[in-house]
Amino acid sequence: MQFKLLERDTKSSARAGEIQTDHGKIETPIFMPVGTAGTVKGIHIKDVKEDVNADIILGNTYHLYLRPGTDIIEKAGGLHKFNGWDRPILTDSGGYQVYSLSGTRKLDEKGVIFQSHIDGSRHNFNPESVIDIQRSIGADIIMAFDECTPYPCDYDYAKNSLQITHNWLDRCITHFKNTDPKYGFSQALFPIVQGSTYMDLRKQSAEFIASKGAEGNAIGGLSVGEPHELMYEMTELVCGILPDDKPRYLMGVGTPANILESIALGVDMFDCVMPTRNGRNGMLFTKNGIINIKNKKWADDFSPIDAEGTSFVDHQYTKAYLRHLFVGKEMLSGMIGSLHNLSFYLWLVREARRHIIEGDFALWKEEMVKKVSQRL
Amino acid sequence: MQFKLLERDTKSSARAGEIQTDHGKIETPIFMPVGTAGTVKGIHIKDVKEDVNADIILGNTYHLYLRPGTDIIEKAGGLHKFNGWDRPILTDSGGYQVYSLSGTRKLDEKGVIFQSHIDGSRHNFNPESVIDIQRSIGADIIMAFDECTPYPCDYDYAKNSLQITHNWLDRCITHFKNTDPKYGFSQALFPIVQGSTYMDLRKQSAEFIASKGAEGNAIGGLSVGEPHELMYEMTELVCGILPDDKPRYLMGVGTPANILESIALGVDMFDCVMPTRNGRNGMLFTKNGIINIKNKKWADDFSPIDAEGTSFVDHQYTKAYLRHLFVGKEMLSGMIGSLHNLSFYLWLVREARRHIIEGDFALWKEEMVKKVSQRL
Repeated sequence: MQFKLLERDTKSSARAGEIQTDHGKIETPIFMPVGTAGTVKGIHIKDVKEDVNADIILGNTYHLYLRPGTDIIEKAGGLHKFNGWDRPILTDSGGYQVYSLSGTRKLDEKGVIFQSHIDGSRHNFNPESVIDIQRSIGADIIMAFDECTPYPCDYDYAKNSLQITHNWLDRCITHFKNTDPKYGFSQALFPIVQGSTYMDLRKQSAEFIASKGAEGNAIGGLSVGEPHELMYEMTELVCGILPDDKPRYLMGVGTPANILESIALGVDMFDCVMPTRNGRNGMLFTKNGIINIKNKKWADDFSPIDAEGTSFVDHQYTKAYLRHLFVGKEMLSGMIGSLHNLSFYLWLVREARRHIIEGDFALWKEEMVKKVSQRL
Repeated sequence: MQFKLLERDTKSSARAGEIQTDHGKIETPIFMPVGTAGTVKGIHIKDVKEDVNADIILGNTYHLYLRPGTDIIEKAGGLHKFNGWDRPILTDSGGYQVYSLSGTRKLDEKGVIFQSHIDGSRHNFNPESVIDIQRSIGADIIMAFDECTPYPCDYDYAKNSLQITHNWLDRCITHFKNTDPKYGFSQALFPIVQGSTYMDLRKQSAEFIASKGAEGNAIGGLSVGEPHELMYEMTELVCGILPDDKPRYLMGVGTPANILESIALGVDMFDCVMPTRNGRNGMLFTKNGIINIKNKKWADDFSPIDAEGTSFVDHQYTKAYLRHLFVGKEMLSGMIGSLHNLSFYLWLVREARRHIIEGDFALWKEEMVKKVSQRL
């Protein structure tokens, strides 16, 4: 994996770059659609590629491990072959899902014992097994196993958890070095900065992670309920410590405004379920603000969903028709909402990139943050 | 509306023809995907057009009347404008939905009082109102208001109901003549033959309907639970009486084998929820038989869904991947199943048409009925 920094914004820490992988190039800043179980919910692979035009998508280790299971994915020849997506893929480590989904779980220095959300069966994740699973899935970028702390989180819990995450990282790196990719292309391992919302822990973690010389670095444990300002503070602090010549990935973030603000702080990569999840619920993000398409005011608005939108759905369907589909709980409603929102998110990060390269990012960002945050 | 008979099969009553409407040509025999509430469930309009390549789709008067309501559809400029489908549309009359969906209903000579399945509100359909609603929706082909009798059905009930259906037809025709299309293109009114499974009633009804000189004629009240052989008997009898120079539409039918057998009896048009409904449940129709894709046997079958299929989904996705999507109840599963099945249905009727024109329909049909009915 190669990362090349192309331009820097002079008035913020925003950067434009590109990541080269064996499955193609990723232009940063980038938003990565979430394909939890190997599918971006409600969107055909060809539309993720040709309409959303995503450079890279995510898969979730926890979900793919439970279903279809690594045996099936290995037999298929890896996730790319299994789902037919031939551009880059990133898999998370399962740490977040174990934190957010599981009922009963037991976490200690050795690893995590958790229950499947599907059938309640017991499973064990540890740094080595999580690397093995991600070797089997075969994503281009894989993540170290970590504990994602909740918000709020006791200082002592956060400190102790951070020590475990750091120890797990060393085991991940060792196991990663001792194993090979399974499908003839390279995989890069990204470590994850934790430390909850404590400046000293975040600093300590960022320095520890930076010292590992990984091909890219992630910031985890944010966007879990803390105020946005606190998230930005942590992100700014950590971005200032993580290597400048490697991509920085802010996990699970966020709203269009969150993404723009974080780009300004030096983040290069984002993922979030928001565009698809909210899209399925009728919340549409546009460059002029947020539309709740279920609102009665759209019932007889026969204008296109988004006259300035980049997706075919923006021009194919009207607001009144889309509202009708949502009110009737038609499958097509969520399909359109997801496709629109993802296309908008990809437009947003590409537009950010263009403004970074053209040198007027900071000004554009200030205006855009206001526009995208208002309700229409 | 113009209907032109192009070829007849010498060994059966199958015919190949074409219907010309103001929204374009329909090549018969044809299968019409069902778009109940103005959407073919789980499929983007562009894919219904470009991938399924349907000549015509259905809308349901009952559903569209309740939601979004005729006021919204009129404001949009008719259903074509509302949902963006610019090829022909056919709407049913609501008779079938009133029969199959409603809890409380009261039917007499005047019309039907029924309760909305959405909110329990009371509504009234009668021959005149149903024509008015279909004028507002603006389909190219609209249906007369009828009572769809259940199976089994008492002779006396069927006979009395038939009389009501015939009286309603006369009122429909009168009201149709006294009203104009609303959107500048022609609409054709098809009457519906009823009579349950009684030969004498079916004969009487077919003769009555034939005497009206409509632009096309439909056969209703079949495929409601009766044995297939009984359905074929009724269809054969009725097709022998309905005008030869007008299209014949067998409503709500059916399996691939049902369609082939009915084409052989002289039917030109079909609709059914089966390809989309069963597609959403993991039952795939192919030219080699029926696949229950949820079956464990497909878990590690990495061959395309249908190597001979005409849809992009057939080649984009593997059986193992599709099974994974169904097991995980992913939205994409139903989207793929529906698209595959509809594409297959359209392939089937086009292939039937080709064989009618080439003169070997009867032989091909015999082989095909066996193949499409077996379980894979």
